[in-house]
Amino acid sequence: MKDSIKVGIIGFGTVGTGVVKVILNNRETIRRRLGIPVEIAAIADRDLDLDRGIRIDRRLLTKDPMDVIINPDIDILVELMGGINQAKGYILEAISRGKHIVTANKALLAEYGEEIYRAAEDAGVDLGFEGSVGGGIPVIKALKEGFDANRIESIFGIINGTSNYILTKMTEEGRPFPSVLSEAKEAGYAEADPTLDIEGIDAAHKLSILVNLAFGTPVSVKDIYVEGIGRITPLDIEYAREFGYRIKPLAIAKIADGEIDARVHPTMIPDDYLLAKVNGVYNAVYIVGDAAGESMLYGKGAGELPTGSAVVSDIIDIGRNIISGSPCRVPVTSYKSENRKVLRVKRIEEISSIYYIRFMAMDSPGVLSNISGVLGKNNISISRVSQKGRKEGGSVPVVMMSHRANEKDIRTALMEIDGMPYISEKSLVIRVEGEEI
Amino acid sequence: MKDSIKVGIIGFGTVGTGVVKVILNNRETIRRRLGIPVEIAAIADRDLDLDRGIRIDRRLLTKDPMDVIINPDIDILVELMGGINQAKGYILEAISRGKHIVTANKALLAEYGEEIYRAAEDAGVDLGFEGSVGGGIPVIKALKEGFDANRIESIFGIINGTSNYILTKMTEEGRPFPSVLSEAKEAGYAEADPTLDIEGIDAAHKLSILVNLAFGTPVSVKDIYVEGIGRITPLDIEYAREFGYRIKPLAIAKIADGEIDARVHPTMIPDDYLLAKVNGVYNAVYIVGDAAGESMLYGKGAGELPTGSAVVSDIIDIGRNIISGSPCRVPVTSYKSENRKVLRVKRIEEISSIYYIRFMAMDSPGVLSNISGVLGKNNISISRVSQKGRKEGGSVPVVMMSHRANEKDIRTALMEIDGMPYISEKSLVIRVEGEEI
Repeated sequence: MKDSIKVGIIGFGTVGTGVVKVILNNRETIRRRLGIPVEIAAIADRDLDLDRGIRIDRRLLTKDPMDVIINPDIDILVELMGGINQAKGYILEAISRGKHIVTANKALLAEYGEEIYRAAEDAGVDLGFEGSVGGGIPVIKALKEGFDANRIESIFGIINGTSNYILTKMTEEGRPFPSVLSEAKEAGYAEADPTLDIEGIDAAHKLSILVNLAFGTPVSVKDIYVEGIGRITPLDIEYAREFGYRIKPLAIAKIADGEIDARVHPTMIPDDYLLAKVNGVYNAVYIVGDAAGESMLYGKGAGELPTGSAVVSDIIDIGRNIISGSPCRVPVTSYKSENRKVLRVKRIEEISSIYYIRFMAMDSPGVLSNISGVLGKNNISISRVSQKGRKEGGSVPVVMMSHRANEKDIRTALMEIDGMPYISEKSLVIRVEGEEI
Repeated sequence: MKDSIKVGIIGFGTVGTGVVKVILNNRETIRRRLGIPVEIAAIADRDLDLDRGIRIDRRLLTKDPMDVIINPDIDILVELMGGINQAKGYILEAISRGKHIVTANKALLAEYGEEIYRAAEDAGVDLGFEGSVGGGIPVIKALKEGFDANRIESIFGIINGTSNYILTKMTEEGRPFPSVLSEAKEAGYAEADPTLDIEGIDAAHKLSILVNLAFGTPVSVKDIYVEGIGRITPLDIEYAREFGYRIKPLAIAKIADGEIDARVHPTMIPDDYLLAKVNGVYNAVYIVGDAAGESMLYGKGAGELPTGSAVVSDIIDIGRNIISGSPCRVPVTSYKSENRKVLRVKRIEEISSIYYIRFMAMDSPGVLSNISGVLGKNNISISRVSQKGRKEGGSVPVVMMSHRANEKDIRTALMEIDGMPYISEKSLVIRVEGEEI
């Protein structure tokens, strides 16, 4: 009988610190549930001198991740160093030595997930990644186990806290994107280089992980359409409000006729939807299953302790498998590997949606009729038009909401409209979700 | 190697039908995840002729639950007959024969959970009860596994759909309780005898199950303070709105200084809280953990398919334990039985809260001052008073919001105030939650 579950951690940054804090602070409650304690056997990080606000035996620390990986005492390697290639190398090395793995590295799993999943499965070790999506929200476990009696139909996720924080602030304070972004950087809610977050790339990484679990298919992050929040203006937020919507940074995945629709973009959703009330840095994943119906999981999507909570729940999960001799009890990607199917991911041009379109047009007679003409010619019918303010000879916003239309038609129409002489800037399109949620 | 997981179902009512539908409709997706199919080996019900809208081999049907229990082919007994004593007898009998158990019977677990949990543990069989709380929401798994690295601090649940439906309708339509209740009965959202739901008893059953998992203590449902929604009027809802609150039917559990505060009552919560937006028959459980922080799980709290989803997720979970030879891998009550501690549950008189109080008082000079005098004498200070409408010589509502006060003091004060000659009916108290959420 084992008397403890021993973990080695590589990467002692924010999340690593959170994991250590959770293991130390909640040692007793974890032991009461698991039966034996979780012990930290080694931690590797380049910086051994930083004060992380926790007391830890210095003899556990090393600069070399390999010291952790080759340590025969260690049951579970916890990879929290981030980055892609080095982290991948260490994980594969640890797998080859029979270590179980816990990681929160969504970029790595988005890019090399298939290779790592297969390696873990072939080696008969467990791989936990609850911390990779939604911070403290147990959404990975919900998709792998909680909703496993369901055919999942769709997922709507607010899974990037930075984008949600910025859009929330813009909505609440009527301020433009650049000003809110600077403030978010200062407040620590956005990275110094926020590209991955505000361009939707981080959300796409996470969505690729969720799609995999929900639909039993590998998906390349390159096939996920991505659009950032940088072109949204207070004006669009104001129009959204007027039309009864909120603009949220959504990661969307749906399945229909054996094909996947997966995309990340700012989205208008009805303002009385629960997802529309998920504000600030909070995350939420709205899951529609054929049996459970509509469910939502909400919580803190990032941060030392929330992500620590997720990582340690993986450690306990794997610890239980170690104790009961049942490694790989749940398939790493929810579906047994032999039962996964490669499903085609639609190109964005193949989807249909309702569209909000903001044109910036010269305020002169005939313009609206010309725009409408091009839309009509492309099978786009309009449910609502709003043009506020007049500016003789200047450019004014003309806003339209379409009925359901094909993205392809929208693109064709906008190409033509944006080439018209009285259109002063590239038109902005925001996709609208509603009926399906 | 087993080639299928065989389940026997006793009770072929609404949930039983849902379970059979989920197993049949999602046979393929379940097999792709579990590796082998789940098969229905037998179903017992008194009524074998009712058309349940599903095609099922009549040879699987029996009137006698014992036929199912003694069937040696069956791995898992699924108890969905409801009721207490008979269901308990069948479950214990099946446990003694080495069957794993899945049940959605919250009343049974609330009353005899300890005995059943122990029997299952002693026999080394699994007992799943995801369907007992929150319908399709995987809240049991979240508490047992998703948040198991946390010290859970508090739980705020909307876990009775009927009460939430009625209060939502009253709020949206300004209609009184009796009229909405009749309509809910007609629409099938309330039982013919809705006592268990509207009096808060069903929610107390469910809360006792959650408290057990969250805090690692047995709890008797008799120790949970319960108050129904029947005395709430449209006037209270209107005042709540004016003060920035919503009245929701909450099940609340907190731990402090090793003691449990567990209660079910209509509660005012700030109207910008996510929990305040959970409307209609939807359920939600708001969980505060020391590491994950604030999380919420939301979804369909009842119904054939949502509860079917939960029950079948238990079947798959136990199926995985059967396949990998790891029964009882997660302790039935989340904490290892030897690590559970009996914690004291506070009596309602021991709690403190913020209180909304509505007095019905004669509209005459000096009344307000007399009421305030009694409150002051009992250490209750008032943050807000509202008295609308005048009715010379008649009775008018006088509404107050207190600062944090002791329940004991409130009760003493109201006893005195309600005895005053110019008070025309028993004063109504609604507890207010906010700071803690």
